[in-house]
Amino acid sequence: MTENVFYQAPSVTRTARERLNGHRAIVIWFTGLSGAGKTTLANALEAELHRQGRRTLVLDGDNVRQGLCSDLGFSAKDRHENLRRVGEMARMTMEAGVITLAAFISPFEEDRARVRDIVGPENLFEIYVRCPLAVCETRDVKGLYRKARQGEISHFTGVSAPYEEPTSAHLVLDTSVLSASECVGRMLESLQSRLALPGG
Amino acid sequence: MTENVFYQAPSVTRTARERLNGHRAIVIWFTGLSGAGKTTLANALEAELHRQGRRTLVLDGDNVRQGLCSDLGFSAKDRHENLRRVGEMARMTMEAGVITLAAFISPFEEDRARVRDIVGPENLFEIYVRCPLAVCETRDVKGLYRKARQGEISHFTGVSAPYEEPTSAHLVLDTSVLSASECVGRMLESLQSRLALPGG
Repeated sequence: MTENVFYQAPSVTRTARERLNGHRAIVIWFTGLSGAGKTTLANALEAELHRQGRRTLVLDGDNVRQGLCSDLGFSAKDRHENLRRVGEMARMTMEAGVITLAAFISPFEEDRARVRDIVGPENLFEIYVRCPLAVCETRDVKGLYRKARQGEISHFTGVSAPYEEPTSAHLVLDTSVLSASECVGRMLESLQSRLALPGG
Repeated sequence: MTENVFYQAPSVTRTARERLNGHRAIVIWFTGLSGAGKTTLANALEAELHRQGRRTLVLDGDNVRQGLCSDLGFSAKDRHENLRRVGEMARMTMEAGVITLAAFISPFEEDRARVRDIVGPENLFEIYVRCPLAVCETRDVKGLYRKARQGEISHFTGVSAPYEEPTSAHLVLDTSVLSASECVGRMLESLQSRLALPGG
């Protein structure tokens, strides 16, 4: 290396990784109320994409809050920072050639706009997982709505904190009407051309 | 989905991703002084692994400090947090099936031990990119040693802050003696069996 001090190997580009994988890498962002079905749909879509031979990763509160963002709480400032880091992480996994599915309530347009900036709007596919609050609250899979109504959780989206509906989502899925497999079908249909390599 | 509220699609496992990729995913950690050649070797190794059809990603100060860790400075506390996040990010990209090459000075055994904990020792391959300080300082590719000697940068590893030599590195490469391509050859030799799928 002494003779090669300034040698910089050509970096492997995202395009080269996409070519190796046989598909484009994008970020698919799921937003919606707690209990709307974001993680369920992300996992179901991932399973199908993987079955088709695509490289995938799901990011959600469970795996991010325990790891990368374990130092963060739930104050407004920490929630913003949480989503910023998720955006940065998603950008990196996308750069690695991986279709990255991110499932986060992300109730504020300001945060979603920042993710769009970080990832690049051309790389982002936004899905609004819509479901009436009453239905989410009836499901209450994690028992969080009950706690929020009893005041044990404050600033809970839909109950004591606002959810700003996205106006620019590429796809809206109403999970009080559609089955999970119907949702997966619609997502795949919308994504096919976006995942195809140019000229491929 | 109403009938499927509790439906959880089986998550795609790391093993399934590795099978799809045809190789195991691990984290390769490069530690050493500034100017020792960490990023150079990470990029050169990545280029070769990619040429062989492996999925790869390089994490280094340049792409992490501008993104995921853009909120951090260079205090001791922030440096620790920087490496913690890099460890968590590397764990995620490894989970995604990607061979993750991380090039960071990481001068303290405490931080390297934490990365080992986060990633899991069985998933980590540590390379000590050794190079005498005098040689790094002569190279001074980024002009940082000059600034450190002039007092313009404080706590600079090797000059005004310690570098704790790793005692448990899987591979030690002295870049004042070996050429870049010799280093790549040694790394590939050590990694072949670790990247092979079990029974593959």
